[in-house]
Amino acid sequence: MVLVATRNPLNVGAAARAMSNFGMLRLRVVKPFEAAFREARSAVGAAPLLAEAEEYDTVAGAVADCVLVVGTTAAARRELQHPLHRLEHAARAIRKQLASGNVALLFGSEKRGLSNEDLSHCHWLLRIPTRQAHGSMNLGQAVAVCLYELVRQPTSGKAGRMRGANKPTSAKSGQMWGANRATKATVGEIERITALLLEALGESGYLKPRAAAATREKIRRLVRRLELSPGDAEVWLGMLRQILWKLRSG
Amino acid sequence: MVLVATRNPLNVGAAARAMSNFGMLRLRVVKPFEAAFREARSAVGAAPLLAEAEEYDTVAGAVADCVLVVGTTAAARRELQHPLHRLEHAARAIRKQLASGNVALLFGSEKRGLSNEDLSHCHWLLRIPTRQAHGSMNLGQAVAVCLYELVRQPTSGKAGRMRGANKPTSAKSGQMWGANRATKATVGEIERITALLLEALGESGYLKPRAAAATREKIRRLVRRLELSPGDAEVWLGMLRQILWKLRSG
Repeated sequence: MVLVATRNPLNVGAAARAMSNFGMLRLRVVKPFEAAFREARSAVGAAPLLAEAEEYDTVAGAVADCVLVVGTTAAARRELQHPLHRLEHAARAIRKQLASGNVALLFGSEKRGLSNEDLSHCHWLLRIPTRQAHGSMNLGQAVAVCLYELVRQPTSGKAGRMRGANKPTSAKSGQMWGANRATKATVGEIERITALLLEALGESGYLKPRAAAATREKIRRLVRRLELSPGDAEVWLGMLRQILWKLRSG
Repeated sequence: MVLVATRNPLNVGAAARAMSNFGMLRLRVVKPFEAAFREARSAVGAAPLLAEAEEYDTVAGAVADCVLVVGTTAAARRELQHPLHRLEHAARAIRKQLASGNVALLFGSEKRGLSNEDLSHCHWLLRIPTRQAHGSMNLGQAVAVCLYELVRQPTSGKAGRMRGANKPTSAKSGQMWGANRATKATVGEIERITALLLEALGESGYLKPRAAAATREKIRRLVRRLELSPGDAEVWLGMLRQILWKLRSG
């Protein structure tokens, strides 16, 4: 990560924080406008990274040990002499090059971006897919978005991938209230819920004592559409039992 | 985009800028700490969006017309009662739901994130894949990363795809709040069902008259997991109203 001629030290700090968030720990700074950038309060949790940032006088010096230099630009900002790739595609190329050596990602100043001289050190450019009407991003946010794209996991094209891909964190909530919908309640449980609901609806006058079969079937389908998990089914059974008991004792 | 109890107005402005960059133009704010957030200088280029931001007293009000409510959280922050998905996978689910109605993405305060009460309004949670050693992101940066993931184009597995793939992007404005082809009940309807169920459970003695907040939050999540259609939601409302009426008159 190379920040060129950044004006606001808070933006350097914000960039450092995002780098630390995403595990990119080497920051280089070329001609920062404000020498005191290392004290930026915005670098929450990233003070060590900022302390170790390397300062350079020239872009050439900052990228000398890299195998690939990528510039960043807001869309359609100027006549570009370089190939320009959307971030999604750029990230794939960057990840590939990281196998063979260091890659530099250059961000220009808040007002003007990278100069033509800066750009001349770049192999190609990337842009974040912002909308044309408002392309220019805050520097710290742009850094965060680029780094996120570099660490994100590719999602497969398969439908239903989401449910399966979630192991890490459903916490200890106890089966009773668990959010786990991996398995479904048995048809037997669903039918007990249906029966209790029908009784409660009969007691309350929602259904006539001898409701038409069609109505009862509607309610049955209604309950099936809930696709309850075993844990949730048990909770609903308990609630309906209590309500029915009260309806009858009232 | 719903910002809950944000403390620093500069963060509201930064979030607004990122929203404008990525074409998500509807901001809702719940109990902002600083009433003057609309003047935040950080909203470069996003003043109109900030001017039109809607202010709410409660999360329930802010998400009432949505079919899906997603909370954001830093990884491993607490014992979670909700399913938690990585942003990459969460985005796919969100895009899918946008076909059926509005989706709300909730961000909590800078210090504490979303409260348990806030979380009880969420269907599930997402987290940005930051590293464990430094998980907590700046609010404006987190917003930018989430919105980027929502507008990014999937990259194909094919080699050589990169060069061809640079069409200009314009995220359709208002995408985040989707066009209505209501296949799911709004959160407002679900909340009414929750309220009636809680009353019925109170009347029947299943819940103590002053049930603990935690219990009410459990019931709220339970009802959200039903994923009711608008038609079914109406039937459940009718049934619960009748049951409640009978419980009270009995």
